[in-house]
Amino acid sequence: MTPTITAFESSPDRGRGLARDMRVRWALEEVAQPYDVRLVSFKEMKEPAHLALHPFGQIPTYEEGDLVLFESGAIVFHIAERHAGLLPDEGNARARAITWMFAALNTMEPPIVELEQAPYAERDKPWYEERLPMLEDRIRGRLDQLSRRLGDADWLDGAFSAGDLMMVMVLRRLEGSGLLEEYRNLSAYLARGQARPAYKRAFDAQLAVFTGKPSAG
Amino acid sequence: MTPTITAFESSPDRGRGLARDMRVRWALEEVAQPYDVRLVSFKEMKEPAHLALHPFGQIPTYEEGDLVLFESGAIVFHIAERHAGLLPDEGNARARAITWMFAALNTMEPPIVELEQAPYAERDKPWYEERLPMLEDRIRGRLDQLSRRLGDADWLDGAFSAGDLMMVMVLRRLEGSGLLEEYRNLSAYLARGQARPAYKRAFDAQLAVFTGKPSAG
Repeated sequence: MTPTITAFESSPDRGRGLARDMRVRWALEEVAQPYDVRLVSFKEMKEPAHLALHPFGQIPTYEEGDLVLFESGAIVFHIAERHAGLLPDEGNARARAITWMFAALNTMEPPIVELEQAPYAERDKPWYEERLPMLEDRIRGRLDQLSRRLGDADWLDGAFSAGDLMMVMVLRRLEGSGLLEEYRNLSAYLARGQARPAYKRAFDAQLAVFTGKPSAG
Repeated sequence: MTPTITAFESSPDRGRGLARDMRVRWALEEVAQPYDVRLVSFKEMKEPAHLALHPFGQIPTYEEGDLVLFESGAIVFHIAERHAGLLPDEGNARARAITWMFAALNTMEPPIVELEQAPYAERDKPWYEERLPMLEDRIRGRLDQLSRRLGDADWLDGAFSAGDLMMVMVLRRLEGSGLLEEYRNLSAYLARGQARPAYKRAFDAQLAVFTGKPSAG
């Protein structure tokens, strides 16, 4: 059964692929599963029909027959569990790959989201400029640790996994901040992720929503 | 094989059970698995031996033979996957329970951690007092949505699951803020979680580290 995901009807990031549907699209492309997309407006996201699917009124959601999921982490995990290609078969390696999914979402992403939200929430506040370096340093602390762990490896733990997919997408949110450029191995890691054919297909598909051009895939 | 977890040697919360080892202890108690605990000091957490286990220098870690995991979400999931009692057997219900784990960690917890960290990071700043209501409103928005979804149910989706375990532990971090008290159903939900025998055994075990009294379990 072809699943249906939801994505933004109008793009807060102008198709740069930073919205969380990109994570799900990439996962589906890695495992070569077709999917349908339903676009929702900001207004619709807060209405009962969408809130029945997603209690926090966000995208993406994932519908597959009777099953309704939300949270990009849960959706990517669901895809990874049901199709080969995103998690190792061996039990311990699989548990470690899942660990990196949680690390991306619970350790790396929160301070990055905080930096990203500051201009929307606090740009007009007298403290805005003074707080930014503090937020950046908090992220730098995490990037230092991640960079040390990655070292010269291609991926976080052996072969590419759903953990890398999540981490690449979370780190991409730092684009434009100048922070990633301080870490040569993390920059190369991101480039490796974005060079994957599945990533490119997913990126083109989300971009096509905003440019009006049909994607090749 | 009995797993070993790590926990704080000295307690930032004086044994209130808010440190993330409590999540893992509770999960292990729910599935009736014995475990060993190794206490680490703040100094040790930043040293190479611990960083080899946990790249971000935190607790808890989980060691079981050759397997080393970090991130409380990943550890609880690992326990839930290998032992009955924390995830439904039926596939769709299982995927929804996992969704609530991610929702607790990626949607609910980040703004709560931000409020919790503010006194440590910014109490001496001129903006500290003015920012607090903003942080609280951000959390209130999430609590509104969660409260609406929970309604009169005992648990978030059918029977108690690892998703509830995570959500209860994340919401407990709001104790003392006065925010939980605004939501009668969420307060009752927390009380239900804390009334579980497995919760109590886990709580007593973590408290015994700081009081020096051996736990009953």
